[in-house]
Amino acid sequence: MFKRFLSSLLLIVTIVAIVMGGSLIYSTNPSPELVEAVSNTSSVNEARKVAKYIFMFIGDGMAAAQVNSAQIYGGSNKPNNMKLDVLNFQNFEAVGYQTTHDSTSFAPDSASTATALSSGYKTWSGTIGLKPTGDISGNEVENVDLKDIPKTIAEKLKEEKGMKIGIISTVTMNHATPAAYYAHVPSRNDYYEIAMQMADSNFDFFGGGTINKPKGNNNDQKDAYEVLKEKGYKIVNTKEDILALDNKQGKVYAVTPVVQDSGSMPYAIDNKEGDLTLADFVKKGIDVLDNEKGFFMMVESGKIDWAGHANDAKTNIMEVLAFEDAVQVAIDFAKKHPEETLIIVTGDHETGGMSIGQATTGYDVAFEILENQKMSYVAFDELLDEMIKKNPKLKFEDVMPIITENFGLKNEYEDGEGDNPYMTLELSNSEVERLKRAFDDTMKEELPKDEESYRLYGGYNPLSVTLTHILNNKAGIGWTSYAHTGIPVPVYATGVGAELFNGAYDNTEIYHKLVTATGLK
Amino acid sequence: MFKRFLSSLLLIVTIVAIVMGGSLIYSTNPSPELVEAVSNTSSVNEARKVAKYIFMFIGDGMAAAQVNSAQIYGGSNKPNNMKLDVLNFQNFEAVGYQTTHDSTSFAPDSASTATALSSGYKTWSGTIGLKPTGDISGNEVENVDLKDIPKTIAEKLKEEKGMKIGIISTVTMNHATPAAYYAHVPSRNDYYEIAMQMADSNFDFFGGGTINKPKGNNNDQKDAYEVLKEKGYKIVNTKEDILALDNKQGKVYAVTPVVQDSGSMPYAIDNKEGDLTLADFVKKGIDVLDNEKGFFMMVESGKIDWAGHANDAKTNIMEVLAFEDAVQVAIDFAKKHPEETLIIVTGDHETGGMSIGQATTGYDVAFEILENQKMSYVAFDELLDEMIKKNPKLKFEDVMPIITENFGLKNEYEDGEGDNPYMTLELSNSEVERLKRAFDDTMKEELPKDEESYRLYGGYNPLSVTLTHILNNKAGIGWTSYAHTGIPVPVYATGVGAELFNGAYDNTEIYHKLVTATGLK
Repeated sequence: MFKRFLSSLLLIVTIVAIVMGGSLIYSTNPSPELVEAVSNTSSVNEARKVAKYIFMFIGDGMAAAQVNSAQIYGGSNKPNNMKLDVLNFQNFEAVGYQTTHDSTSFAPDSASTATALSSGYKTWSGTIGLKPTGDISGNEVENVDLKDIPKTIAEKLKEEKGMKIGIISTVTMNHATPAAYYAHVPSRNDYYEIAMQMADSNFDFFGGGTINKPKGNNNDQKDAYEVLKEKGYKIVNTKEDILALDNKQGKVYAVTPVVQDSGSMPYAIDNKEGDLTLADFVKKGIDVLDNEKGFFMMVESGKIDWAGHANDAKTNIMEVLAFEDAVQVAIDFAKKHPEETLIIVTGDHETGGMSIGQATTGYDVAFEILENQKMSYVAFDELLDEMIKKNPKLKFEDVMPIITENFGLKNEYEDGEGDNPYMTLELSNSEVERLKRAFDDTMKEELPKDEESYRLYGGYNPLSVTLTHILNNKAGIGWTSYAHTGIPVPVYATGVGAELFNGAYDNTEIYHKLVTATGLK
Repeated sequence: MFKRFLSSLLLIVTIVAIVMGGSLIYSTNPSPELVEAVSNTSSVNEARKVAKYIFMFIGDGMAAAQVNSAQIYGGSNKPNNMKLDVLNFQNFEAVGYQTTHDSTSFAPDSASTATALSSGYKTWSGTIGLKPTGDISGNEVENVDLKDIPKTIAEKLKEEKGMKIGIISTVTMNHATPAAYYAHVPSRNDYYEIAMQMADSNFDFFGGGTINKPKGNNNDQKDAYEVLKEKGYKIVNTKEDILALDNKQGKVYAVTPVVQDSGSMPYAIDNKEGDLTLADFVKKGIDVLDNEKGFFMMVESGKIDWAGHANDAKTNIMEVLAFEDAVQVAIDFAKKHPEETLIIVTGDHETGGMSIGQATTGYDVAFEILENQKMSYVAFDELLDEMIKKNPKLKFEDVMPIITENFGLKNEYEDGEGDNPYMTLELSNSEVERLKRAFDDTMKEELPKDEESYRLYGGYNPLSVTLTHILNNKAGIGWTSYAHTGIPVPVYATGVGAELFNGAYDNTEIYHKLVTATGLK
């Protein structure tokens, strides 16, 4: 009882001290930053701190549905024992919500949303690091003086704080999201110009995917890798060389030794034992960037988005889980620098209109069905292409065994459940018909460019996308789109300044919150 | 400069005071509540406060997509001038995320999710206020002693704090969500038993929808309204009597004077000028409940969910906006009692797998198209039923004019855009074919109970649901399901204890956070 009294007394003393301190500060007309520091944060002690090591993780196309799907896949789906796996970043102390529309649409693009995150303003779909001026229809930026262009958070931290900068992505280095941290171009398709600005960025570490179109759209420009070397970048592209990197050799570009579609790192689901992962690149990024002035590292998992576009849930989930592994590297780093590190994990927009539950399965969900999928749609495309190359008269019956092998789907009715087996791997008659039609469409020289064709396949290999649609639906997963959607995206933050990221706000605010958290002007 | 120095000095003094206070408290082995009060909240001053007036707003079936859709509808969709309307609760200082699975499924039910919110534990889909014991397949609760049943937050606040309790819903009072605050039954379909427990609850205010099946499933029980009267409830069901309510007449049940489907209040989109709204019921609830011991009020907008089940976006959006109006009443109340009020706004689960963006419209969204929808699918069903009653040989051509009048969709090609007009009100040939087929199916005695039929219509009137599907798709809205989905749901909180609701957590945590915020044991 006495202890309790003592505690209460001490609490009152504390309150008085805070209230007095607070009111005194206000009464002497302090600088705005100090007032903000005292009033905005949960601990005055923390408020004085400025983040020295900043990790900005962007799951491209990752919103609540993608995160929750990974939780369900890693959890337990047994009645009376339903459990979600908890992803490491869901334990972060701050959670927020960002809206993602751009200057063109409520279903935005990665170039404009990444620009909002990196630079704090809205721009057109497709534009990187430039403000929308003039007529949107032209989509041209004329007479822009590069001096007048707003700097990205990475450029500012380098210039004003002398921090080292790392840009990591599973997709190409001159793709929209990484580009939004160093490039300023009217169109995300200006790949060569972006690569040139990458070479001029003077950023300290690039890691992950290759350079898209390194010799330009017409293959007639000077090789961008050569330009990077001339600008002082050491380029390494073997596992051995990458693992040997440290903070002694200056500017580095570590290129994935294994390449999948469009010059990207392979999907996690397709990774072979020993292949470098996104987590490996984050580890090496830290090794290269570690210095006394601190660093800013942007890490993009770009193929969560690509798997979303293709409506391939299993591949999407495995990318989110690999992304979690990459975040773990930052969490481990933060444990060694708890007073100086800020980790943010978010997405740039949702992709695919993914949902946990769909019409024909109603209130049932069976993600365990996805365990039978062994490869991504891309790997299956390649497998199929090879089969067709070997045998141009390929028949559906020839393909069915590899469907069963790699997706588990079976064209048989062993248990006599009839033609509508519910949430099992057995294909119903109508599902077999859908697959056959998709196979026929895959074998055609060209598909009609009509709405129906797009609605069914979204421009993907008809058989692959129909396969994942059927498997996803059996698992209880629906998709509405092959493009991005406008659904708000969660933001998770931990460490110095994390509390700034609580609340509901626009994506542009994330840049401004980072400015505050890092003590920039 | 001197001021700045002085500010810094004062800040340091404050920090020292806090750190000293904090460490002294810990060193004297204080009570856990005090430690929590100091460490968990943004201001020690606030931590001592306990919420006296608590508003728990539940948008049934409302997740991020539903909130964001209402924002887009009320905003501006002009390139270079894209703007979201900001809903009042999005300005709340705390935002969180709840996962919603129940003991049966990751795509949960309203009975179990409302039980999680009201009582802090997971239970079976369909079960209200009882823990899942025994075998799920039986779904029976045997030998339950009502004394052993965990109390809901509302029951606890009444018993332990003497607070008055209000339960408001746009749907029936014995529907799953309101019931989860006062009833304990194995199945949400035990409507009569729930109504009996409502009468026994001794809660102070019920307002909104009617009682479902007041004489039991076989229409052979004593009228529940009579039972309520015998238990001391004053029942009022005219606008005049409802508006005259105050805190002098004891326990009250205010029943909507206008009834739509299944005994609910009409959809906001179908409301006539002067009809009572959900906001009106919240106002009267406050008038009835206002007392010196405080109150807890649960306000459910139950038909956001129903419109989601029916895949009717415009009706869904108008319900969310009417819900916002109801929240405004609580915000206005909180302005008068800023140190004593806690407002929480959340959903129980997502319904429909709604998305902002869908396959055929890709990156384009045109919510302004929804302005042409004048009534809900239910009102259209009724209109159609009357036409069929008058003319059982009704033809599609007879119906097309009322489709144009009430949904704007036109079967003509005035501007020569051919048969695939993009995101306009003009129907393409294939859309007309879909409508005709749906009309034919509507006119059939019975539809086949197959997967295809369910995928197309979800058990709804074929013509109505096809109409909203087409209109929604043209606006850039997709749906994946006629049921609930497992996508996490945002939580917004303001006032005393709001900071507890930041972060990512399970829906059961909301109950425990409320226990903390209200100072219950």
